[in-house]
Amino acid sequence: MSTTPIITKDELLKHWQGHRALTRRVIEAFPEKELFTFSVAGMRPFGALAKELLSIAVPGLQGIVNRAGEGYTETGLEGITTKEALLKKWDEDTPQIDELYNQIPEADFHETFNLFGQFNFPIIHNILYFIDNEIHHRGQGYVYLRSLGIQPPFFWER
Amino acid sequence: MSTTPIITKDELLKHWQGHRALTRRVIEAFPEKELFTFSVAGMRPFGALAKELLSIAVPGLQGIVNRAGEGYTETGLEGITTKEALLKKWDEDTPQIDELYNQIPEADFHETFNLFGQFNFPIIHNILYFIDNEIHHRGQGYVYLRSLGIQPPFFWER
Repeated sequence: MSTTPIITKDELLKHWQGHRALTRRVIEAFPEKELFTFSVAGMRPFGALAKELLSIAVPGLQGIVNRAGEGYTETGLEGITTKEALLKKWDEDTPQIDELYNQIPEADFHETFNLFGQFNFPIIHNILYFIDNEIHHRGQGYVYLRSLGIQPPFFWER
Repeated sequence: MSTTPIITKDELLKHWQGHRALTRRVIEAFPEKELFTFSVAGMRPFGALAKELLSIAVPGLQGIVNRAGEGYTETGLEGITTKEALLKKWDEDTPQIDELYNQIPEADFHETFNLFGQFNFPIIHNILYFIDNEIHHRGQGYVYLRSLGIQPPFFWER
């Protein structure tokens, strides 16, 4: 294995948090009602997708840090029914993500972990999945916003 | 800088090519006509988005390898008007991406490069952008497919 990292652990965290900042802007761009009701082609509204992201990030990292293979659940987020509550939870999770992520030693990123008792991959792939899945669903959110006649934030903004 | 890479150069390439394999499946899932004509909310059809991805990957890597800040262009892809031609170009670019990427020394990933004479960032961020932008647009493609009543490939398939 090389000794010149192409990306450091801190840089990957910053990259992820940059994506989370953009996703936050997408949440903000939705009108209150449409955030929880509007969708295209029977897919989930963006509020539900954002709750999925919340159910993955902190719980997934907790699983990795504690090597606890608890199943995926969205339990605990049912009470979030307003944009304000969703953004509040989003912001509460931001420092928690930093704190948990920083507890993962660099040497562990190539260890295998059975995420949510279901996805048995090296930890680096668990974490790349968190980021990729967020970008994927946010891409959906861009289509919803355009369908609502709302200009989404620039993809470059982080 | 740490000496334990959280992800190696080879792993990042494999990760990218895995995403490209999934995007290829999304191209395949579109009916011929809709690939170049169908969209939601006046956005670009998926064929046009795929051409954007082709205009970024190999040309972007060529820019990085040769440190040539040529502007972004989709010139040269006008002739691609069928699914078969698009998939052929996609497959031709796959080994080119490997070959060009492998020419970038690990130590260069933190050097700054002015991608397309426009985006002045460390090379690692140029490359993460290639991947992120592909995931973002493919997420759009998933909504198009659902709108057409077509089940998209599983996000996990690579």
